Amino acid sequence: MRPQDIIRKKRDGGELSREEIEFFVSGVTSGDVAEYQISAWLMAVFLNGMTDAEQSALTLAMLHSGEILNFKDIPKPKVDKHSTGGVGDKTSLLIAPFVAAAGACEPMISGRGLGHTGGTLDKLESIPGYRVNLSLSEFSAVLDQCGFAMNGQTAEIAPADRKLYALRDATATIEAIPLIVASIISKKCAAGLDAMAIDVKTGSGAFMREREQSRRLARALAKTGNSLGVRSQALITDMNQPLGQAVGNSVEVLECIQLLRGEVSEGTKPVLDLSIELAARMLVLAKIESSIESARARIKQVHESGAALECFRQNVEAQCGDPRVCDEPERILPLTDKSFKVESPRSGFVVKVNAQEIGHAIAEAGGGRVRVEDEIDPRVAFIAELRIGDEVRAGESIGVVYSADQDCGQHAAVRIQAAYEIGDERPAALELIKEVIE
Amino acid sequence: MRPQDIIRKKRDGGELSREEIEFFVSGVTSGDVAEYQISAWLMAVFLNGMTDAEQSALTLAMLHSGEILNFKDIPKPKVDKHSTGGVGDKTSLLIAPFVAAAGACEPMISGRGLGHTGGTLDKLESIPGYRVNLSLSEFSAVLDQCGFAMNGQTAEIAPADRKLYALRDATATIEAIPLIVASIISKKCAAGLDAMAIDVKTGSGAFMREREQSRRLARALAKTGNSLGVRSQALITDMNQPLGQAVGNSVEVLECIQLLRGEVSEGTKPVLDLSIELAARMLVLAKIESSIESARARIKQVHESGAALECFRQNVEAQCGDPRVCDEPERILPLTDKSFKVESPRSGFVVKVNAQEIGHAIAEAGGGRVRVEDEIDPRVAFIAELRIGDEVRAGESIGVVYSADQDCGQHAAVRIQAAYEIGDERPAALELIKEVIE
Repeated sequence: MRPQDIIRKKRDGGELSREEIEFFVSGVTSGDVAEYQISAWLMAVFLNGMTDAEQSALTLAMLHSGEILNFKDIPKPKVDKHSTGGVGDKTSLLIAPFVAAAGACEPMISGRGLGHTGGTLDKLESIPGYRVNLSLSEFSAVLDQCGFAMNGQTAEIAPADRKLYALRDATATIEAIPLIVASIISKKCAAGLDAMAIDVKTGSGAFMREREQSRRLARALAKTGNSLGVRSQALITDMNQPLGQAVGNSVEVLECIQLLRGEVSEGTKPVLDLSIELAARMLVLAKIESSIESARARIKQVHESGAALECFRQNVEAQCGDPRVCDEPERILPLTDKSFKVESPRSGFVVKVNAQEIGHAIAEAGGGRVRVEDEIDPRVAFIAELRIGDEVRAGESIGVVYSADQDCGQHAAVRIQAAYEIGDERPAALELIKEVIE
Repeated sequence: MRPQDIIRKKRDGGELSREEIEFFVSGVTSGDVAEYQISAWLMAVFLNGMTDAEQSALTLAMLHSGEILNFKDIPKPKVDKHSTGGVGDKTSLLIAPFVAAAGACEPMISGRGLGHTGGTLDKLESIPGYRVNLSLSEFSAVLDQCGFAMNGQTAEIAPADRKLYALRDATATIEAIPLIVASIISKKCAAGLDAMAIDVKTGSGAFMREREQSRRLARALAKTGNSLGVRSQALITDMNQPLGQAVGNSVEVLECIQLLRGEVSEGTKPVLDLSIELAARMLVLAKIESSIESARARIKQVHESGAALECFRQNVEAQCGDPRVCDEPERILPLTDKSFKVESPRSGFVVKVNAQEIGHAIAEAGGGRVRVEDEIDPRVAFIAELRIGDEVRAGESIGVVYSADQDCGQHAAVRIQAAYEIGDERPAALELIKEVIE
């Protein structure tokens, strides 16, 4: 077998065999396939797609390119959630204590933020002392003790994905569904999961802005997860505005702790609702509950009883963070002193929000990364005070930007102001959960 | 401008601007665009094609990536021929003295053989002493003195093409028409031509086996040449069997000298006919003759008068070869002592020939290159004794293989025997010149 023959076959629209895909991916990992051959193949896959069989084989080959974790000693079902990413999407921090308190076990391998979306690891680091670089044995111990653990990806997990991702970024082949699916599912499966819920965002702050595209991705993710023996379900959920009020790192952790403590507002309720729904689906997939109704009730119960907050507190302590943040949330790294009000330029209703623009504005102000190597200021934030459908008068506040730098803060406030479209008629309400894909 | 944005645009089927193509090609030459980006772009071009405007811009950018020769001091029209390659295709060695003797000037930059096709440089080197590594000033002097000069490509001509070609070979993107056209036309235009005839082969020994594919290539070549100010015409010609009788290096030069000397046989006549037709079209394109009829008459006249042979003799001498080969052709490097008869397995008519298989058999026996770094034995040859339509009896000779090595020779004879299909009915005659594309 030669790499160029495999490239040619995909170029001509042929279906690659399992052996051909294994040969190619193992060459990617070992370096035997040159980078210029990999990128020609990536473009051929981008333009010609993959069949279900190819998709499974690619995902499996990427999974087997590295270490596969195994938590068989922990006698609970292993379950996780993946989100395709959005603005203000912080459900991971609620879902993990929810499902752990309900008897499942969530070994969560997370990433850093890049572009307009944040990353769970960055958020967690705004809890003083919190470690996201646990060794595998530390990770396993925390998981056993608390029912969930949250950590960064190690170099041993799916190394083929790291190489492919770097090349995709440089060759405009990021957005191909087969490549996205293989990247996500191979990494998730490497954590030894039994079941997985997938939150596919759709709308102005999502990677997939169009519903049909989101649907295709959701189907491919669920199908591939199931084909690899991980019971999977995908939800298509709204990302036409920030999820909840907080966009930033400290501020998102703060919002989560408030929600875990039962402090819910109109603006933050969607975060809780979506977290409960996803966590409930995870319980059903994990076979802890037999119906979605009983699963929802169980999650609400662990929330209202404070069991989930207690689970979170244990995890923070086990991962070397300051557990007092659960009682005194102001112990989270604070916001900046300087703040910048975003005013509505006119009276009317919020009809549309460019959520991606809000994400980019906060990233550029230092709250996220424009480039992989950027440092993050966890205090930079935007707190939204309006949601789509809300009425507003000229000069009233849309929200507040926090930034230590005058120019950065002002610039972000101007960008965010322009991201809100104020119209004359109240728009129809947006459904938070749009579709369930089995 | 960033390379990945240009890749994305081509990926999405957009039309690249002249500036974008110039930026990309100059990055290829300088090394600023990484090889993995180039190859992703090559695959996107392969699958999405190029418009005429993009094709011209790409060819021009590749032309300007290196040195452009200029023979303005020679007061004759500069004209050349390009062939897409075939088996036994040796017309270059006849056409150059034909057009030179008729008053044009042919600065010929040629290549080496690879795969099933031979290369003019390899053939010329079977003339004892003949140099194909002239300096630019030597090349110019020979051109001025003899009306034609034949040389290898220097590193200074179209360096972007060399880099792209190596990547295309490794990434299965060789066969894309826009890339083929840019490669051919940029190198030809770098020789400062006024006019160009293009011989696009079609059939079992051609790179393009299908007529429609050959036609698309021929149109793109002629159109792009004309768009760059080089008056161009393409002919689609038959390559369903070796052109003439000789396949190999020494033996092809021998056949050409015999033809220049007026020694024409039924088997070698197609070489002469095609050479006259191409040379005549070059005279018209060069505006030396005003009609194709008068041009054909002029070429026949310089052939029959011996003026073309004299031109060839002068060139051999000027390029340090032994000019006595023109009078005593046996001075060309001889054939091997060992020969292997290829017998017809049955009685009937030659109905079909796999010309590519003959080319590969001779290359593998040492008469060509399987890999770029292979050495050539110029004595290895196949001399065909039958053409499509000829009648043959079981056991009679199809042709003879020459090889110094017993095993190689026998193996080649077996392969070539299998490349001839003998049937019961005489097939329709093949047209040598199938189509003219303006």
